[in-house]
Amino acid sequence: MALTIALAQINSTVGDLPGNAHKIMQVAQKATEQGADVLVTPELSLVGYPPEDLLLRPSFLRRSQQVLDDLVSQSKQLSDLTFVVGYPRQVNDQVFNAATVFRNGEVLGHYGKLELPNYAVFDEQRYFDPDGAPCVFGCKGVRLAINICEDVWFPRAPALARAEGAQVLLVMNASPFHLNKQAERLQVVQSNVSRHSLPVAFCNLVGGQDELVFDGDSFALDAKGEVTARANRFSEDLLMLQYDPQSASLIGSLQPEMSAEYQAYHALTLGTHDYVRKNGFTGALVGLSGGVDSALTLAIAADALGPDAVTAVIMPSRYTAQISIDDARACAKALGVQTHEISIEPAYDALVASLAPAFAGRGPDLTEENLQSRVRGVLLMALSNKTGRLVLTTGNKSEIAVGYCTLYGDMSGGYAVIKDLLKGWVYRLSRMRNTLHPGVDGAPVIPERILTRAPSAELRDNQTDQDSLPPYDILDDILMRFVEQGQTVAEIESSGHSREVIAQVMGLIRGSEYKRRQAAPGARITRRAFGRDWRFPLTNRFSEKELFL
Amino acid sequence: MALTIALAQINSTVGDLPGNAHKIMQVAQKATEQGADVLVTPELSLVGYPPEDLLLRPSFLRRSQQVLDDLVSQSKQLSDLTFVVGYPRQVNDQVFNAATVFRNGEVLGHYGKLELPNYAVFDEQRYFDPDGAPCVFGCKGVRLAINICEDVWFPRAPALARAEGAQVLLVMNASPFHLNKQAERLQVVQSNVSRHSLPVAFCNLVGGQDELVFDGDSFALDAKGEVTARANRFSEDLLMLQYDPQSASLIGSLQPEMSAEYQAYHALTLGTHDYVRKNGFTGALVGLSGGVDSALTLAIAADALGPDAVTAVIMPSRYTAQISIDDARACAKALGVQTHEISIEPAYDALVASLAPAFAGRGPDLTEENLQSRVRGVLLMALSNKTGRLVLTTGNKSEIAVGYCTLYGDMSGGYAVIKDLLKGWVYRLSRMRNTLHPGVDGAPVIPERILTRAPSAELRDNQTDQDSLPPYDILDDILMRFVEQGQTVAEIESSGHSREVIAQVMGLIRGSEYKRRQAAPGARITRRAFGRDWRFPLTNRFSEKELFL
Repeated sequence: MALTIALAQINSTVGDLPGNAHKIMQVAQKATEQGADVLVTPELSLVGYPPEDLLLRPSFLRRSQQVLDDLVSQSKQLSDLTFVVGYPRQVNDQVFNAATVFRNGEVLGHYGKLELPNYAVFDEQRYFDPDGAPCVFGCKGVRLAINICEDVWFPRAPALARAEGAQVLLVMNASPFHLNKQAERLQVVQSNVSRHSLPVAFCNLVGGQDELVFDGDSFALDAKGEVTARANRFSEDLLMLQYDPQSASLIGSLQPEMSAEYQAYHALTLGTHDYVRKNGFTGALVGLSGGVDSALTLAIAADALGPDAVTAVIMPSRYTAQISIDDARACAKALGVQTHEISIEPAYDALVASLAPAFAGRGPDLTEENLQSRVRGVLLMALSNKTGRLVLTTGNKSEIAVGYCTLYGDMSGGYAVIKDLLKGWVYRLSRMRNTLHPGVDGAPVIPERILTRAPSAELRDNQTDQDSLPPYDILDDILMRFVEQGQTVAEIESSGHSREVIAQVMGLIRGSEYKRRQAAPGARITRRAFGRDWRFPLTNRFSEKELFL
Repeated sequence: MALTIALAQINSTVGDLPGNAHKIMQVAQKATEQGADVLVTPELSLVGYPPEDLLLRPSFLRRSQQVLDDLVSQSKQLSDLTFVVGYPRQVNDQVFNAATVFRNGEVLGHYGKLELPNYAVFDEQRYFDPDGAPCVFGCKGVRLAINICEDVWFPRAPALARAEGAQVLLVMNASPFHLNKQAERLQVVQSNVSRHSLPVAFCNLVGGQDELVFDGDSFALDAKGEVTARANRFSEDLLMLQYDPQSASLIGSLQPEMSAEYQAYHALTLGTHDYVRKNGFTGALVGLSGGVDSALTLAIAADALGPDAVTAVIMPSRYTAQISIDDARACAKALGVQTHEISIEPAYDALVASLAPAFAGRGPDLTEENLQSRVRGVLLMALSNKTGRLVLTTGNKSEIAVGYCTLYGDMSGGYAVIKDLLKGWVYRLSRMRNTLHPGVDGAPVIPERILTRAPSAELRDNQTDQDSLPPYDILDDILMRFVEQGQTVAEIESSGHSREVIAQVMGLIRGSEYKRRQAAPGARITRRAFGRDWRFPLTNRFSEKELFL
């Protein structure tokens, strides 16, 4: 008789212990109705991932254990279903990134993660002790073992499970998304597990947590390492797998692949939705300039939250072209989003007049450009305070990398939707979104002219971004190589970029570190974003330029 | 014949490899003139501490090795002086937090740190591989061993050095300051090293690096663990030690102790000085309200940078009491600091008028208070942009903990001078500063009335901080227990605080996490500050209040 394994690809919320426990019981009920024998949940499913310094609070650990114990009791309600639930488990002075296996109100075993990632966005050695003692348990005569996430990125833990006689490896994950991560995960699991001819049931978290987005994409591999089942991406799912001990096959349903643009768009939508909703905001506000960044941000917000929960604020100045206002209005209209239009001129003039005595003898410079941006920031934050809606910032990764943005101006806001999208990707996602479905008025949600005009901050006459920056295709390529791939300047130079441009970009990146330190979080969708995996000092005299010397 | 060991308590700058190398050669010259046989520098002295993600750049590691190699060559100029210099040393795929010993142009050996701290502000397991193979070298017939910082917080590394026959342990440190750290260091070193009857020469870094302040306080212990020499605190020093192999004594000069308030004041002054100067700013700007926080911030800034490099900006509104303006003027005058006075009323009125249509039907609330604060932020940032001076923010730890501050308003600025001072400590340091020396006009630098008035944000009529917050003595005690000591709510309750107040404070801390995430860095002077050692999620439904349930 086949064994039925249910992978509960759930969206836990960090710190919401009772809510997550309730969610696990709900999905367990559903899994039972579908004939499940075993229910596998993601890494730290009971507490959300990553709980960060909550793990240093004794009360958090005690409460986690209490809620886990309650779940064990409640498991009596679902006769013979075996639960595998992740939570931080304290044993004397040690804390493990653990899983507990229980059935019919009784604990069958525990597993503690062996490999603790402490690179990129991960700080697990700050919180956890390594364990790795194999946990193999029986269910309908089949021997199942547990690994947790990073464990399968190395050979040790799967080999230990195999040595203990495991027939199927259950892998609990909170594996964050970035572009191409799916292929990477598969390859690593195949390399470390499939060589033992061990079928794999890989259950991943889904949802947004601050800067991280978990894409779900739970899957199964048979003993040969072939993909035999695949869950939804970017939404909750319950993936049912049938294990046949005779053939060692592990079979379920297969969801289709998605294009890279489609993945990125869904990741940003999910990240935005979860940040806004998990933090209890009723909606969001976007400053809409008539440019592509704010247009895409508005589209993502409207798709994530529904158009009624989003307000666009158009804030023109003397430097704003009429076509910018027209395009902004058209974009909001197509998305069905309410707008406010507020000129920044009166407040800007009042500020300039107030500052005039202190500025005596000094001509206009970047100060006045920043002032315009800051008036917009103040207006948006006032609307946010008054209405309870969260301000979404609209800066892209190219701008944030080189500091082409104003602290306390366009950087004001709680969540930076496209913070990890290079400018070229902003266009790619905008075009992709226009192909999905038209606006409520039948027009493209991002007006064509927005996609073809030269980008401008419109903070002085006839300004374009390229007055201050290298062309975006060059800038983006250098940023991708330096930030995401970690190339040296020599490698970047040998790819064909000029020494002058590389040096300019390096200087701009280093000089804008202080802005990024005070930036809002935003969804990470690349291998390296400006968040927890970018920890450069502010005070720093090292310049990559030195390497040209 | 006695061996002379020189402890070079230097102020390295992160990333300034040639500058730090030059500094090491300068101090080596001076040490030679004073008869030194061995020159010990702090942990990672060549590159500054902590270099953070610079350590992930291959170019940074290569360049560090180059500059180290240059130093080895230059050591020929100082005949027979043995150098002990810290830098990140790459060996194949491994990177060590290392020290290299060299003399007369030749390398005598290497040491790699064994214990890598990965808690509090430290992320060393993100960057380094552990080593710990003992490095014992001879100098004038004496056997000297090296440990690096965290090594002496555990028994293993000192025991290994002892087993290799070391007669003196040289300890290279980048040990950050917090109140009472001095006593803690001594006790730990005595416990782990002195039990081996091993004299200790402990060389610590001095200076500010972003949120960290290194206090110097290099010292020597004799074989019995008695302190026999002590360097300056909060400034560079060269501590000369005489080691007599006969008596195993290690003798130098002893600097006197400092009070806790004096230490804290010096730490903040050094942190402010180094942030402003190492980042190349010509000076600083402080918004001066007539309250104690901005008065103390201004005093620290003037002491750190000199009064000519500091500008105070007084920005009254309809809610500003005349005595606040008078006291602000008196404070600036006593400190000899230039002032600007700019009313926020015209800009505030213009913003309110611009927002009126969007606000139709909604009465005044916190929005209007935040608007006032944000106009001040915009004015300060405009002055900063125009003059190149850095804005120093004036919020204290009590306010920042509970979110009693305005994002993009009074939180606008590059460095938060008193961010780690609870309100009670703000008063303590203010009174202490008034006893040091009077103002340039003979008056107290912080006018007495500022120290006795009830604190108010002056954002509406007759407002005081205690309208919104528990009394500061209660708030501060709860914060000290929760934030700095990590007590549970049960422990805090048993110390005598009411459940209602504890729950209120816990709720305020959790609800203001998003503000702290976008806050400027500021000097850490307690066991736990709101910086790298405070990593709570923004999206977080766990409340300590749950523990009362």
